[in-house]
Amino acid sequence: MESLMEAVLAALSVVVHPESHSRRKTCKETLIEGRPGQSRITTPRKETDTCKILSGTYEGMTTGTPIHVLVPNTDQRGGDYTEMAKAYRPSHADLTYDLKYGVRSVQGGGRSSARETIGRVAAGAVAKKILKLKCGVEILAFVSKVHQVVLPEDAVDYEALTLDQIESNICRCPDPEYAQKMIDAIDKVRINGNSIGGVVTCIARNVPRGLGSPVFDKLEALLAKAMLSLPASKGFEIGSGFAGTDLTGSEHNDEFYMDEAGNVRTRTNRSGGVQGGISNGETIYFKVAFKPTATIGKKQNTVTRDHEDIELLTRGRHDPCVVPRAVPMVETMAALVLMDQLMAHVAQCEMFPLNLALQEPIGSTNSTPALA
Amino acid sequence: MESLMEAVLAALSVVVHPESHSRRKTCKETLIEGRPGQSRITTPRKETDTCKILSGTYEGMTTGTPIHVLVPNTDQRGGDYTEMAKAYRPSHADLTYDLKYGVRSVQGGGRSSARETIGRVAAGAVAKKILKLKCGVEILAFVSKVHQVVLPEDAVDYEALTLDQIESNICRCPDPEYAQKMIDAIDKVRINGNSIGGVVTCIARNVPRGLGSPVFDKLEALLAKAMLSLPASKGFEIGSGFAGTDLTGSEHNDEFYMDEAGNVRTRTNRSGGVQGGISNGETIYFKVAFKPTATIGKKQNTVTRDHEDIELLTRGRHDPCVVPRAVPMVETMAALVLMDQLMAHVAQCEMFPLNLALQEPIGSTNSTPALA
Amino acid sequence: MESLMEAVLAALSVVVHPESHSRRKTCKETLIEGRPGQSRITTPRKETDTCKILSGTYEGMTTGTPIHVLVPNTDQRGGDYTEMAKAYRPSHADLTYDLKYGVRSVQGGGRSSARETIGRVAAGAVAKKILKLKCGVEILAFVSKVHQVVLPEDAVDYEALTLDQIESNICRCPDPEYAQKMIDAIDKVRINGNSIGGVVTCIARNVPRGLGSPVFDKLEALLAKAMLSLPASKGFEIGSGFAGTDLTGSEHNDEFYMDEAGNVRTRTNRSGGVQGGISNGETIYFKVAFKPTATIGKKQNTVTRDHEDIELLTRGRHDPCVVPRAVPMVETMAALVLMDQLMAHVAQCEMFPLNLALQEPIGSTNSTPALA
Amino acid sequence: MESLMEAVLAALSVVVHPESHSRRKTCKETLIEGRPGQSRITTPRKETDTCKILSGTYEGMTTGTPIHVLVPNTDQRGGDYTEMAKAYRPSHADLTYDLKYGVRSVQGGGRSSARETIGRVAAGAVAKKILKLKCGVEILAFVSKVHQVVLPEDAVDYEALTLDQIESNICRCPDPEYAQKMIDAIDKVRINGNSIGGVVTCIARNVPRGLGSPVFDKLEALLAKAMLSLPASKGFEIGSGFAGTDLTGSEHNDEFYMDEAGNVRTRTNRSGGVQGGISNGETIYFKVAFKPTATIGKKQNTVTRDHEDIELLTRGRHDPCVVPRAVPMVETMAALVLMDQLMAHVAQCEMFPLNLALQEPIGSTNSTPALA
Repeated sequence: MESLMEAVLAALSVVVHPESHSRRKTCKETLIEGRPGQSRITTPRKETDTCKILSGTYEGMTTGTPIHVLVPNTDQRGGDYTEMAKAYRPSHADLTYDLKYGVRSVQGGGRSSARETIGRVAAGAVAKKILKLKCGVEILAFVSKVHQVVLPEDAVDYEALTLDQIESNICRCPDPEYAQKMIDAIDKVRINGNSIGGVVTCIARNVPRGLGSPVFDKLEALLAKAMLSLPASKGFEIGSGFAGTDLTGSEHNDEFYMDEAGNVRTRTNRSGGVQGGISNGETIYFKVAFKPTATIGKKQNTVTRDHEDIELLTRGRHDPCVVPRAVPMVETMAALVLMDQLMAHVAQCEMFPLNLALQEPIGSTNSTPALA
Repeated sequence: MESLMEAVLAALSVVVHPESHSRRKTCKETLIEGRPGQSRITTPRKETDTCKILSGTYEGMTTGTPIHVLVPNTDQRGGDYTEMAKAYRPSHADLTYDLKYGVRSVQGGGRSSARETIGRVAAGAVAKKILKLKCGVEILAFVSKVHQVVLPEDAVDYEALTLDQIESNICRCPDPEYAQKMIDAIDKVRINGNSIGGVVTCIARNVPRGLGSPVFDKLEALLAKAMLSLPASKGFEIGSGFAGTDLTGSEHNDEFYMDEAGNVRTRTNRSGGVQGGISNGETIYFKVAFKPTATIGKKQNTVTRDHEDIELLTRGRHDPCVVPRAVPMVETMAALVLMDQLMAHVAQCEMFPLNLALQEPIGSTNSTPALA
Repeated sequence: MESLMEAVLAALSVVVHPESHSRRKTCKETLIEGRPGQSRITTPRKETDTCKILSGTYEGMTTGTPIHVLVPNTDQRGGDYTEMAKAYRPSHADLTYDLKYGVRSVQGGGRSSARETIGRVAAGAVAKKILKLKCGVEILAFVSKVHQVVLPEDAVDYEALTLDQIESNICRCPDPEYAQKMIDAIDKVRINGNSIGGVVTCIARNVPRGLGSPVFDKLEALLAKAMLSLPASKGFEIGSGFAGTDLTGSEHNDEFYMDEAGNVRTRTNRSGGVQGGISNGETIYFKVAFKPTATIGKKQNTVTRDHEDIELLTRGRHDPCVVPRAVPMVETMAALVLMDQLMAHVAQCEMFPLNLALQEPIGSTNSTPALA
Repeated sequence: MESLMEAVLAALSVVVHPESHSRRKTCKETLIEGRPGQSRITTPRKETDTCKILSGTYEGMTTGTPIHVLVPNTDQRGGDYTEMAKAYRPSHADLTYDLKYGVRSVQGGGRSSARETIGRVAAGAVAKKILKLKCGVEILAFVSKVHQVVLPEDAVDYEALTLDQIESNICRCPDPEYAQKMIDAIDKVRINGNSIGGVVTCIARNVPRGLGSPVFDKLEALLAKAMLSLPASKGFEIGSGFAGTDLTGSEHNDEFYMDEAGNVRTRTNRSGGVQGGISNGETIYFKVAFKPTATIGKKQNTVTRDHEDIELLTRGRHDPCVVPRAVPMVETMAALVLMDQLMAHVAQCEMFPLNLALQEPIGSTNSTPALA
């Protein structure tokens, strides 16, 4: 059996090899996130370092100790960043870090670089694996919008979608036709030094019923926080989201019925798998908006650290569109939230179930209706 | 000087008296949130109870002790809820609470009732007051969409908007013409037992620069969690949000310039006042989507607690549109997030400022550019 | 079956009726903690109020909602406190609260009154009940020292001790002879307006193996924090404690052996049931030191709030010795710590046990060796 | 000015070079904690690795990013641990880790090794520095008991004690005569393969008034947790501690008076600098008991992982007495607790002081009475 340790390494390879058309590489191939040349639609940096597990595993097993994964950044070139040290790049964190701390790490952007998400992805790999083994949870994200190319809602069947469909192209859009349109859109801005953003849709199938909390820690609240903590994200919506406000209550409500397996189900799923902050067993789905990358190859007005107005032309590499690379990050954050809530649920509700006719133990057959 | 204690009471009156055209009633008039007959567009419940401060204040001052505000619900009628005890109301928390706990409080919905937000509003009142006194922060929310009536983006000047404009009508939309259209839309569904949702926009002016954190606790992440923890909310977007994905980087970036007061400012504000998870001193603005109220006066298919398919017709009162009532809740949650981050910032960054040319002490003149 | 709700009420009666020689009164008899005249060795205050459960239960069952227990303090007399408002009582929290907050609640001491522990006891009652039902955990505390009267170590058999033995006298010392000596010591200081302190010993039998964490949240660390959070406590020691430093390693080590039931046990228990921060299945035992009550009926030098030196003679009631009343508080805090750790353990370690030969599921027969 | 970064490195050298008679080595000399041959009274391991700062600093300044200090353990020899992998060492964490996790890291003990404290010491160095610069706080710990050698209470003047006195000998006892007795005691057990424990006393001078919280997070509770989280610790007492129970209230109370600088002070300090959970400006002092090291060079009865009774003779290095090495750990944990509470205090109480006659701003002259 593949160990959890390998899962970590395997997951790291996901982010690194988007072009490989498979996220299931062996752990020998793992390289760092933010790695360059992953495809022509992303940055041309050369970051060839490998990750090392420094603690937390023993003979291929996790030991309960925090797992320390070290990913050195060997492609960091101080010289590249001279300009940045002086001028605040528009819509970057440069100014706000200076305002908060009075100092910042110029090389590589420090924590404001999307590189920091590699640590999340490593942890998410473990979470995904446990969720899958324990309850059959499947978390899949994909690109559903790039700039003005919008994947139609009905182009993807949330119950049948596979990882292979998503990874069949470098844009991580499961529909080949729209994937090509998106790649074309990215190529277009790449050539002229501009950038674009888009939307990632994420689904989670077979999530156990009962995850989440009634008040502050509603499942959708935790997911919203997790997604807005990702670099460049500007919006989150679950289920019907903003579009749901166009409907009336009678159009929007999800009617209940008993399915053949004896489970309470909903005919529609505008709730997005969550009602009152708690999962109801239907597929969870939500969308995350990512703004166009702030770093562009065009001249912009800005000010220096010394408060002088200047013009800035950022030289060197930049990402024309981060959205394909955001896909595994979105999956990761969803996995971490669900794993936390699974643990909380087991601790709070499984020691003394009050009504077994209503409460299905985690991992039982009934709790995974969508698998049938 | 008005005490913090009075602020709590005064704030409670906000939620209670939306029809009063003023949120600044004396503390004698405070009544409970969710109170009935507050206007014809909301529920006809009679909840006439007053709130009591049971601990935490002494001679009109808070003492540092937790403030205990008790708001008894005297209009709770067990009889009204007989049907609910049996049948799961579509798109309510009934089912999910049973799945999680195996038991639920049927009367009044327990924690799944929006009534629970009154406790938040009480705390938010204190937070708002401190934010205002310390840094001049002004938090204002308003209804920007009801069903398919959309307030145009340019109808509201975020820098000039006043509380009076918002409270000038029972819909809490600052534009009288659109307010009327929204009220008409609500009246229409109210009459036929249906419901509608909408969008609340919130702005926060004069937020000190430097609030928030670089990674997991980005300011926008905390706001997103806070908003999605509100009952019936389905979406959150900050700054340009989902619409920002239609732009290119060169269109979207907020260029910096030096203003006359010597502050670094941005020409545009698509970032929504937050860059890299940290406030930049520009006005923070975001939107929250609220679904149509789940309780409607129409027959719906559902199942009982005993797993029988049945038809349900919920009798009695219901809210045709919660969006106007959500306005103070959105303000409250924004205030609580900003207050927490203000405290964290003071603790983390004000004891040893490293670079006073860049870091403005909280409460100094420079940190509130928009006030000038 | 007795409901959890009743457990709360029953527990409240513990603290209230120490003279009743039984902690298992019906819930009808529950009164408030800190109640007066509970015996001649405690304070002569009249606090006759009953507690009310305001939320969190439904038809005798907890609903998952926070349980709100209100215990009004009707014996609060402002007049009694005039002096305190001016003068800082030596070794009280009066000065430090003023230093921290600039204001304090003079009547009844606010949060510095031991009355605040009633809320803990209510929660602890629920925790104790769950621990008992789930794993057979028994938590018993008793007075082992009052002033210079020291109960000999071998006077109590930790494995055989019963609640009845402890509650057989108003001093809550299970040995009648030493109990009488302690009561005599308290009577002596009571008469001359002085006070004394002492030590409470607490044992927890049948604690599941594996509770606690390896580093910061060691089980003994959590217990130490819980105990030092009790009013008037000044010290904590687990297992051999301070006296263990008189031994060599070969004298102190607890050798392992296999018992007849096939469990790994220790011949001695100087570890106090915890090794490396994690419970090992042996009886947990620890001691807590409580200083002599600060309020005494003797003239003392002190200063006023206005920084004048004065003499203070505190009139009115005071406790000559809080130690007997601290017994249920110590049990309560132990129960809360163990309950928290039980929940954490179930969440962290029971979903995917790696080695069932070593890890005993919570609630299984083997995990409660001492019960046999 | 010495940077915070250097402080980290300098602090690491403290733990490493106890024989050097100075804790203020340059950062070039920093080596790892738990390093061998530090003196004849500790373990003969050879751990010569240096620590590296991998992130969190930029041009000698901290950047606000977490500081990553890596200390590789190059002296780890799998072969040494073969026996441990099979047999549970008495009074070690071997058994309990297996009970909890079903797996453990045998080499070097994993997290159950005292080596983990090096991470704490690194963080504590930063905390100590900030406390010193901001408020003049001085934290000093020393050995006050080794086995049955007890340093008399009056041998150390808490107000005059210096670091040099403590570091004047390898036992870290400020009294040369008693230090020699302690060293003799350690030498004696070292020769015959046995071990002994002892007590560390810690003082904190010039702690600002007002740190701590009234209920669960009392300052003494946080200190107790911090100390009991250290490996091998079994007890904690603050101020008069367990011995204080021998006194009456009139003997124990600390009377207040006005000092010449206009500060409220106490004549005695049995409270140990904390009243009602909050610091009062007097010197904080507390004691921590450490049991004799569990690893000894003598044959002991135990059981194997496969549940066989066997005799174990642990070969190789071991520490005859950890108490001198615990001294910087105790200081470290005290610094971390005080730093946390300082930050909390600034956030909670310094934004809106209610009564400036009572509340002294952190860092003001008056708040450090003992410095005069």
